[in-house]
Amino acid sequence: MFDKVLIANRGEIALRILRACREMGIRTVAVHSTADAEAMHVRLADESVCIGPPSARDSYLNKAAILAAATITGSDAIHPGYGFLSENADFAEMVHDHNMAFIGPPAKLIRMMGDKIAAKKAATEAGLPCVPGSDGAVETADEARAMAAEIGYPVLIKASAGGGGRGMKVAESAETVVEAWQTARAEATAAFGNGEVYMEKYLANPRHIEVQVLADMHGNVVHLGERDCSLQRKHQKVLEEAPSPALSPDERARIGGIACRAAAALGYYNAGTMEFLYEDGNFYFMEMNTRLQVEHPVTEMITTLDLVKEQIRVAQGEPLGYGQDDIRFHGHAIECRINAENSVTFAPSPGTIGRYHAPGGMGVRVESGLYTGLKVPPHYDSMIAKLVVHGANRTECLMRLQRALGEYVIEGVETTIPLHQRLMTAEAFISGDYDIRWLERFVAEGNHA
Amino acid sequence: MFDKVLIANRGEIALRILRACREMGIRTVAVHSTADAEAMHVRLADESVCIGPPSARDSYLNKAAILAAATITGSDAIHPGYGFLSENADFAEMVHDHNMAFIGPPAKLIRMMGDKIAAKKAATEAGLPCVPGSDGAVETADEARAMAAEIGYPVLIKASAGGGGRGMKVAESAETVVEAWQTARAEATAAFGNGEVYMEKYLANPRHIEVQVLADMHGNVVHLGERDCSLQRKHQKVLEEAPSPALSPDERARIGGIACRAAAALGYYNAGTMEFLYEDGNFYFMEMNTRLQVEHPVTEMITTLDLVKEQIRVAQGEPLGYGQDDIRFHGHAIECRINAENSVTFAPSPGTIGRYHAPGGMGVRVESGLYTGLKVPPHYDSMIAKLVVHGANRTECLMRLQRALGEYVIEGVETTIPLHQRLMTAEAFISGDYDIRWLERFVAEGNHA
Repeated sequence: MFDKVLIANRGEIALRILRACREMGIRTVAVHSTADAEAMHVRLADESVCIGPPSARDSYLNKAAILAAATITGSDAIHPGYGFLSENADFAEMVHDHNMAFIGPPAKLIRMMGDKIAAKKAATEAGLPCVPGSDGAVETADEARAMAAEIGYPVLIKASAGGGGRGMKVAESAETVVEAWQTARAEATAAFGNGEVYMEKYLANPRHIEVQVLADMHGNVVHLGERDCSLQRKHQKVLEEAPSPALSPDERARIGGIACRAAAALGYYNAGTMEFLYEDGNFYFMEMNTRLQVEHPVTEMITTLDLVKEQIRVAQGEPLGYGQDDIRFHGHAIECRINAENSVTFAPSPGTIGRYHAPGGMGVRVESGLYTGLKVPPHYDSMIAKLVVHGANRTECLMRLQRALGEYVIEGVETTIPLHQRLMTAEAFISGDYDIRWLERFVAEGNHA
Repeated sequence: MFDKVLIANRGEIALRILRACREMGIRTVAVHSTADAEAMHVRLADESVCIGPPSARDSYLNKAAILAAATITGSDAIHPGYGFLSENADFAEMVHDHNMAFIGPPAKLIRMMGDKIAAKKAATEAGLPCVPGSDGAVETADEARAMAAEIGYPVLIKASAGGGGRGMKVAESAETVVEAWQTARAEATAAFGNGEVYMEKYLANPRHIEVQVLADMHGNVVHLGERDCSLQRKHQKVLEEAPSPALSPDERARIGGIACRAAAALGYYNAGTMEFLYEDGNFYFMEMNTRLQVEHPVTEMITTLDLVKEQIRVAQGEPLGYGQDDIRFHGHAIECRINAENSVTFAPSPGTIGRYHAPGGMGVRVESGLYTGLKVPPHYDSMIAKLVVHGANRTECLMRLQRALGEYVIEGVETTIPLHQRLMTAEAFISGDYDIRWLERFVAEGNHA
């Protein structure tokens, strides 16, 4: 059993990990940059070590400084949180080399899942459904027609060298596929000096649905259901919920089973998330996150499992001690990410927290290291709090969330609370009928203002 | 359906009720004394009415002022909370007479349960187990011997005119019962000029266990399990937990069934609590509280039912919509009552709240109207916050509670948080092996200091 864990992160997730350790009787070591010396998790930790200047490269990404802090404090294990070094396979190996436990999956799986091509290959072999497409270039009009017929319309033709939407064409039917292929090739040649294109199934209105898996070192794997993270702005999740309003219990069980079998086939252990696009009842694997996710609390709220404690138990070598049939889902949970940003322009808004009052009452959970007088530094991600709400069903959850957002007082910085409040009155959100493109339109149309 | 509810209370429970209303889309009217004009529930309510000066008699107990406020604001219903007018049958009738709903049980049951003799008679008829004893005076030594044999030792002999422990004797066996009876009579004569004594079973180390019932106006009744409220000081509950560490599932089902049948026999509706002493596997009815209890959140945490919303739904005439088999119990919950008092002397400590920071994270619920700058007035009950914690089991709950108590910052007044922190390290509390007399000894022995 671990006696002392070093938390190689900052902000709300550092506090989250500290709380789990404390509730397990494990001593905690906080590491922090000079900008975070007064952070709440630093103030609450049993020990703390300054690991560098504000720049993340020199502090939270400074492997040597963090390993030195762990060695000096006699830590048994390191929890990397999310972001920073959490998906750095080299770091995970270095932790092992220093005879400490890395609270996460095997380094080789972190490495594999960090390489897009290797990840897709491994995922396919492990039985995860991927977006159907040409494995390589589509070089003739006949090939384009044949491939599109095999994939099914609509199809997307993309420049192999592409990016930013250039050399990208959608074909809706056999009538237009050759023309689209020709146009894409021409655009690709013009833009990248390379006309090579490939083809894959086009998803017009997909949802982002991810499956949480949890596995121990003894071959036991469970899934904890899905999270719907379709509300995104610039590829950043804004609000997440569980269960997804779009999934049936059968679909949940099916994709959960696929995820578990894949995790077992990969030899995965600890917590992990498989991210899928979902459209018309089909799932398409995007990537696997080999770490705790920001949005893990919505899963905790509907399963009552403490994921950080489970991560620590697994890293200690303990068996899960329960099977899939023991996992029960209760009610509905939603997480709002609250950023220190202007809620219209999304310009970052660092500053010193003035009055601070978190909402309370039934079904309300706040994950935040904020307190009156804290300086929110400009050097890091702008997320300063997560408001997580549970209800007996989605309707109660929405009403409770609206109530809690109205109680939240954060002064001294601008926040995205007003955006969340506008969301609560948006018909598409209330009905659950949204996809990964909806929030961008909602914001662009000024509905949030 | 109610459009507007007046909340005839103050403090954390007024805020609790306001939140439930808001989550149901019901508008709220706060009433307040001049001392509470800046209270959080007043600031959050849709409307508020000042009903008098600080003295509770002239404000929160002022029936005419509250009814006038309800009439002027066009309220459909009044929620009385706990304390104040919540168990005042006259008030409940006046509310009905003003064509508003009283969110509570029928006035006649409030009246019946408020009269100790009538309550015990009704409870017995409704099948609730009471402390066995002589129904009237025990007038001869032979009667004393026969009655004690029937009740079973130990027995308690008490002066009918008694109080304060005078004229009260315990007899452990047939050898001592006549002598105890004689001594009690003599003491009673000396102390009260009246030697009449009666006899009942003596409970040496009972626990306080209460059963939450919920009933609609259509004859449906469920119980929501029990709460163990044995940790008391001067007959005030200090900490409550659910489930009781002392009860088996069979005992829970048995007493729950008895409570449900009694509620049905009485024609009870809305939320109610039957309080029992519990010793050696037996329950002895003490009284029924015909209102929401302070400690209702521990039941909410293990059932995920929102009791205030259920109260409102029942008062609207809705059927429960679920039966006993639909009630599931999850994990363990503990509530700490936090008072503005010195944690050693228990002297009240009113004042202005300085820094205030509530604990957060998984499984932590805070019920409090406190905020930085609020004046805690000296006129009312000293309870200023309830910290309610849920865990997968009692051990996790205790660890989490200890963690959360350590995070709670309340400056400007003294609080009983240190007492709760001492409790968390007390062997008898950790093991669950305590009774209603244990906390007084713990405090007297200075273990809290």
